[in-house]
Amino acid sequence: MPVEPRLLKGFRDFLPGEQAGRQAMIDRITRAFETCGFAPLSTPAIEYADILLGKYGDEGEKLLYRFQDNGGRDVALRYDLTVPLARVVAQYRDLPRPFRRYQVGTVWRAEKPAHGRFREFLQMDADIVGSASPLADADCLAAGILALQGLGLDRFRVRIGHRGVLEAMLDGANVPPGPVRIEVLRVLDKWEKVGRDAVMEMLAALPELGPEAATAVLDALGDGTDEGRVEALAGQAPEAVAHLRAVLGAVRAMGFGEFVALDLRIARGLDYYTGTVYETLLLDLPTMGSVMSGGRYDGLLQTYGVPSLPSVGISIGVDRLFAALVESGQAPKGASGPQVVVCLLGNEAWETGLALVTDLRRLGLRAETAPDPTARLKKQFEHAVRREARYAVILGDAEVRERRGAVKDLASGDQQDVPISGLPQWIRSHLGEE
Amino acid sequence: MPVEPRLLKGFRDFLPGEQAGRQAMIDRITRAFETCGFAPLSTPAIEYADILLGKYGDEGEKLLYRFQDNGGRDVALRYDLTVPLARVVAQYRDLPRPFRRYQVGTVWRAEKPAHGRFREFLQMDADIVGSASPLADADCLAAGILALQGLGLDRFRVRIGHRGVLEAMLDGANVPPGPVRIEVLRVLDKWEKVGRDAVMEMLAALPELGPEAATAVLDALGDGTDEGRVEALAGQAPEAVAHLRAVLGAVRAMGFGEFVALDLRIARGLDYYTGTVYETLLLDLPTMGSVMSGGRYDGLLQTYGVPSLPSVGISIGVDRLFAALVESGQAPKGASGPQVVVCLLGNEAWETGLALVTDLRRLGLRAETAPDPTARLKKQFEHAVRREARYAVILGDAEVRERRGAVKDLASGDQQDVPISGLPQWIRSHLGEE
Repeated sequence: MPVEPRLLKGFRDFLPGEQAGRQAMIDRITRAFETCGFAPLSTPAIEYADILLGKYGDEGEKLLYRFQDNGGRDVALRYDLTVPLARVVAQYRDLPRPFRRYQVGTVWRAEKPAHGRFREFLQMDADIVGSASPLADADCLAAGILALQGLGLDRFRVRIGHRGVLEAMLDGANVPPGPVRIEVLRVLDKWEKVGRDAVMEMLAALPELGPEAATAVLDALGDGTDEGRVEALAGQAPEAVAHLRAVLGAVRAMGFGEFVALDLRIARGLDYYTGTVYETLLLDLPTMGSVMSGGRYDGLLQTYGVPSLPSVGISIGVDRLFAALVESGQAPKGASGPQVVVCLLGNEAWETGLALVTDLRRLGLRAETAPDPTARLKKQFEHAVRREARYAVILGDAEVRERRGAVKDLASGDQQDVPISGLPQWIRSHLGEE
Repeated sequence: MPVEPRLLKGFRDFLPGEQAGRQAMIDRITRAFETCGFAPLSTPAIEYADILLGKYGDEGEKLLYRFQDNGGRDVALRYDLTVPLARVVAQYRDLPRPFRRYQVGTVWRAEKPAHGRFREFLQMDADIVGSASPLADADCLAAGILALQGLGLDRFRVRIGHRGVLEAMLDGANVPPGPVRIEVLRVLDKWEKVGRDAVMEMLAALPELGPEAATAVLDALGDGTDEGRVEALAGQAPEAVAHLRAVLGAVRAMGFGEFVALDLRIARGLDYYTGTVYETLLLDLPTMGSVMSGGRYDGLLQTYGVPSLPSVGISIGVDRLFAALVESGQAPKGASGPQVVVCLLGNEAWETGLALVTDLRRLGLRAETAPDPTARLKKQFEHAVRREARYAVILGDAEVRERRGAVKDLASGDQQDVPISGLPQWIRSHLGEE
């Protein structure tokens, strides 16, 4: 019985045309992260389940791909790259501090698939472990913003909040710490999606809060973007306010002021955040959700029995961002086919032609023969055109005897003879001129 | 209770120093594959289990990471990149033929961990689906050989066998098709590891074979590398012999003769191979096992209910190869730290310095500030040295007022003032001179 070839829901293939662009995008983000002094780390996809448990809140934990391996061990696929980073820093005690790393890695979450949301997706993270300085926050933001700019994006907004400042504000509005406050944070997190009125309604409906306190919360918060209100909290939460102010100042000094905005409504679902929190909206595709998120998690390392280390990071949701770029026609184009097709005609051409293909490749040119080099020239030509090659090189017995190849420019239609020995260089310099 | 930070057995972290080199290695192999006209494909790590089952033989199948997902679906982590490729070609019927793709992907096998053998490892594959031509085999081999050469390797041997030719030889030695022949193939596959005498002993011990037939098998095979013996089988298996001869001829015409050798003893464990088979030994690290393997699998597509498509591919075991490169001191070095550290001294330097860091980064230079820009110069300097930066830029209030920075070459100790506006270009051109 044949098996039906099919994909699991929420999972994707990227066929060559798309994957070449996706790879080009990953390369550009990598370059941006590296210019910001981050170095690469790689960790396994599978971790002991207890390494991951208790980090993502109840809702997150339900989304883990958790199973028993063949040896009966309780394991899970990683849910993000932050918790594995914390595990690494706790495990290898002699890593340099601060530890600046980036990571490109697939993560898995059994979420309900939706627009731009997949169950398996690629994240690219830049984190600094072991620095409480607001410059560390700013450097992670800089890495992310330079990455987005490197993709040609300029219509995006990084919203910067702070859990500590937000909690001070909730203190002022008499929302007690504990379960009800967590509920309030969860509701505020939905603001972008559902709007102010719905938030008001949901807050008022919380049994331990009620309409009056809900109004107090919203009065205190305003629209969340008023820096004056933050300054007014300097008495209650001096460190948090100073830190948030310094992060905003540093990011502006770095030249990214137009891309960032204070937004206190951001709470971020993940349990491990303790200070600044970030989310990034594409202004032309707001329904896509945040494409770049992060924040401070100063307490996460402690869960592995090591002293608490102040840490901050940012994470680009590569596949969501790529879907956005495709949707807006801005996806980069990568290399997905040959630049040169060598057409072999006649027996003598065979050996010379195959050696020529190797010479072209050694020079870094993308080159191949037609799949059937015994076919007529017309068919080999058609192959070159279908593969969108720029040049076809025709080698027949006569050409080989005279040590030359006929090079046809498939864009212009021009054709000329070039000595075989100099042919790869000739093509490379002509491609370089474009 | 804190959780002990630890890894599963057979799984690895790659810390920045190593991962930067590993990434450089992956990039070079990618480039080699692209020059050979292969385009990238990406498929999910998780597939429906029935997509993977029945492809790897009984021994392989036991090694699958198979589990029920949260929706109760029977799923498994991919075991290789070949079967997902076959699923893709069967699923998307309008892909171009022949379909040349490469893929970089993690695979999982619950094998007993050993030297150079991991349970999670990266594979890089180049395959051509839909071509029966020996040139397709040769092009996959070319991609692999160019990749290894691109890593600076020249002491390796790609051993090329052919299942059809080997079976014709076993016919001649009166080994009947069926279970006993499969046992014989399995024993022959161990030759490299255990040696000729042990193979003889194991063959003789097979109840359905016996010492006499075992001797006949080894007499027919010789040491497996005699091309004359292959030619002598042209009567029994004309197509297989002609194909094998053409592959060897094409690879030699391409200029790779010194890296390839006929070796009929290669059988390859995977059930799906039907024709040529490849394995690659590092001559200085033979115990590492094969670092690059592959072959023809002309029947695999049929298992998904589509017509059989002749296909061939090669797969580089990236992590085994990387372990070998590390062991032999040949691992490439990647970028894992900043080239420039900007030291900020004084209040006025703050804004100018952060803007300068951005300018350096935009120019593609790896740059950062010291983690604590309020520290004394000595400490900021120490940071630059520890990070192995080439340059430290010192910006104090005086420098900022005069719009210049003091640039110290940490290799030579030279220091000179450079106008801030031209400083990034100055550093780039000086780095470029090396």
